[in-house]
Amino acid sequence: MNQRFEADYLIETALDPRRAAETMAGEQSSGTFLRLAGETDALKLRAAARVESLEELEARPAPSLPGAAGDCGQGWRRARVTLSWPLDTIGPSLPNLMSTVAGNLFELHAFSGLRLTDIRLPPAFAAAGPGPRFGIEGTRRLAGVGAGPLIGTIVKPSVGLSPAATADLVATLAGAGIDFIKDDELQSDGPACPFEDRARAVMRVINDHSDKTGKKVMFAFNLTGEVDEMRRRHDLIRDLGGTCVMVNLNSVGVSGFLALSRHAELPIHAHRNGWGYLSRHPALGWSYTAWSKIWRLAGADHMHVNGLANKFCEEDDSVIRSARAQLTPLWSDNPCIAMPVFSSAQTVLQPPETFRQLGSADLIYAAGGGILGHPDGPAAGVESLRAAWAAAMAGADLDDWARSHPPLARALAQARGITS
Amino acid sequence: MNQRFEADYLIETALDPRRAAETMAGEQSSGTFLRLAGETDALKLRAAARVESLEELEARPAPSLPGAAGDCGQGWRRARVTLSWPLDTIGPSLPNLMSTVAGNLFELHAFSGLRLTDIRLPPAFAAAGPGPRFGIEGTRRLAGVGAGPLIGTIVKPSVGLSPAATADLVATLAGAGIDFIKDDELQSDGPACPFEDRARAVMRVINDHSDKTGKKVMFAFNLTGEVDEMRRRHDLIRDLGGTCVMVNLNSVGVSGFLALSRHAELPIHAHRNGWGYLSRHPALGWSYTAWSKIWRLAGADHMHVNGLANKFCEEDDSVIRSARAQLTPLWSDNPCIAMPVFSSAQTVLQPPETFRQLGSADLIYAAGGGILGHPDGPAAGVESLRAAWAAAMAGADLDDWARSHPPLARALAQARGITS
Repeated sequence: MNQRFEADYLIETALDPRRAAETMAGEQSSGTFLRLAGETDALKLRAAARVESLEELEARPAPSLPGAAGDCGQGWRRARVTLSWPLDTIGPSLPNLMSTVAGNLFELHAFSGLRLTDIRLPPAFAAAGPGPRFGIEGTRRLAGVGAGPLIGTIVKPSVGLSPAATADLVATLAGAGIDFIKDDELQSDGPACPFEDRARAVMRVINDHSDKTGKKVMFAFNLTGEVDEMRRRHDLIRDLGGTCVMVNLNSVGVSGFLALSRHAELPIHAHRNGWGYLSRHPALGWSYTAWSKIWRLAGADHMHVNGLANKFCEEDDSVIRSARAQLTPLWSDNPCIAMPVFSSAQTVLQPPETFRQLGSADLIYAAGGGILGHPDGPAAGVESLRAAWAAAMAGADLDDWARSHPPLARALAQARGITS
Repeated sequence: MNQRFEADYLIETALDPRRAAETMAGEQSSGTFLRLAGETDALKLRAAARVESLEELEARPAPSLPGAAGDCGQGWRRARVTLSWPLDTIGPSLPNLMSTVAGNLFELHAFSGLRLTDIRLPPAFAAAGPGPRFGIEGTRRLAGVGAGPLIGTIVKPSVGLSPAATADLVATLAGAGIDFIKDDELQSDGPACPFEDRARAVMRVINDHSDKTGKKVMFAFNLTGEVDEMRRRHDLIRDLGGTCVMVNLNSVGVSGFLALSRHAELPIHAHRNGWGYLSRHPALGWSYTAWSKIWRLAGADHMHVNGLANKFCEEDDSVIRSARAQLTPLWSDNPCIAMPVFSSAQTVLQPPETFRQLGSADLIYAAGGGILGHPDGPAAGVESLRAAWAAAMAGADLDDWARSHPPLARALAQARGITS
């Protein structure tokens, strides 16, 4: 096995960036702070990480993070660095990939900034995870949506509804023609709304609606929990005729997720809550492109990407970059494409720009207030969002389109009132 | 179930901190950006998070993190905030605790800084994990070390050694009288050094040494991997007579870890690599006190805390705070004490100050160069570290002590040469 895997970083250091990059490579492979007898040249050649490339960027006058080794009078130098490792050292294992590309190196004294921006894995890594087994096509098939985004929403209030109240809300939304509904990430299996009770109540409504109309709403049941719990809940949803389960990625971790995904027979809706602590500082942590590759390979079918003009602090460029990454193949023969999920303060206003920038409508578009809060009711809410996306995909002006689509016209007026 | 759990945060905001804290409480419980029909007062009373306390700190002139809602001319106000949630919403579940106390809130527009500093859980949470089943007492028993720290080391080079070469190194270290050895976190089960081959080779040496001397060296085998792999590797180590396994926490995640720990019959040595991306910025992410409580409850017996004067960028105060936290009970009747592991550039120089500040020698003290690099060989290296700890525990001056302990004298001279 002669293959190597690579990771790209943004680094910031008071040292010579080349020397700092060599420190990273040493720390994350054969090195230690002393050169030991056992670390022969032959061993290094076989096992060491290599600095594949380094491109210096503009320096900064002050360090981005505290605790780095002192300023040498040349400012804090920044660079893009690519390291590579022999696959022979870890084999195709996602948990061990994590330790290698994102282990101790963020704490190294040499750095006042260190962010993992991308990873590239050899095809042998396809064995490291099942990949998305439904992805865009499988999701469209199960949801019965041939083109355009799945119009979706989230059960709100996030917590506090009983199983029966949740099912009532689902009945309203199904009646309104919605394609997709998800549990809130805070709702899983508390005594106030036990998973099994909620699943049975909700699936009764969804199955009834499907029997009557032929349309089965896709509901992503949040089964976040321990491995045995998640597998048991997955089996319940499958047996009840459900078509999707949801997991909070940072709450279960890579090994827990794999234990579910290798078992799963339904699409997995992956929620990224906690993503802020991994990414909020631009000189620390993970890019979504790098991080999401691990979860896609691990089997995530739907990946959250926030949305344009969201209620969080992420900028629009970053949102689009994240969404594009999900639609970019990992390998040509094993693309591991995940369906991006847009959410957070999404209304009829964002579809044109979202479609223009992404160049695709292969996505889930989750709106809250825009559906249940539509002045003419939830059916008009769903219709207004579909119309906004139809306009976006046709390249038409929203207001022009709204002239022949009254629910869109009402929603636009409402959304502009809210956001102005 | 009428109990609540609490979390403490450090927040930074351009808003009124009280209002910002209410936003957090809303986002992480029943709220949404629109007040929906379903969010009645009764529901809020039942399910909402509460702001339990707020103490304002000195403001900062500039935001710590980018992307926060704009400055209102009062600077960036900082506060310590405590939120509480009803246990009824999530039940005693560690994965769902993660989503609740450390979910979307780090991305909220209101904050230019948000760090989780502590969590407090009601006793019902004891069901959420097995807790450390060996801890200090069980580790001392299995390692045969009644008092003082376990003197340990890490197999280095981190990667590149074959199973046979690893076993040779272990033979040397066992012969030197060491108590504890761990795999490097980068070494798990790659083709270059397969787990099973390494385990068999190393345990042969350890069992031979134990047969001859009655002392069984504790070796923490890094079994980081998928759940089934970890369980299988654990069983192999148990069957070979091994006494410890090791897991990279951030590589496997909480659910993966629980799937191992509920199955485990050996102490679990928990490695925190990746901790930097969770903690390096002081206004973002997790404190070790909060984070380690989750892993202790999940069953970690040994928790890494770095070391004084380490090679990373963590300050000594933070190291001691982390170590103290491991020795502080979670509950009086279920303390979940984990044994702190000191490592990273540790030599004979740090024991006095470590003992003085921690007030305990219930720890693992892992040194690299100080053992294999001792001028009189590894047995003198181990002896020098034991002597340094004996001096520390006796409150004696290292140099005084060294007069009757030649290996310590030599090690002091060497360490001062290296570090001066």
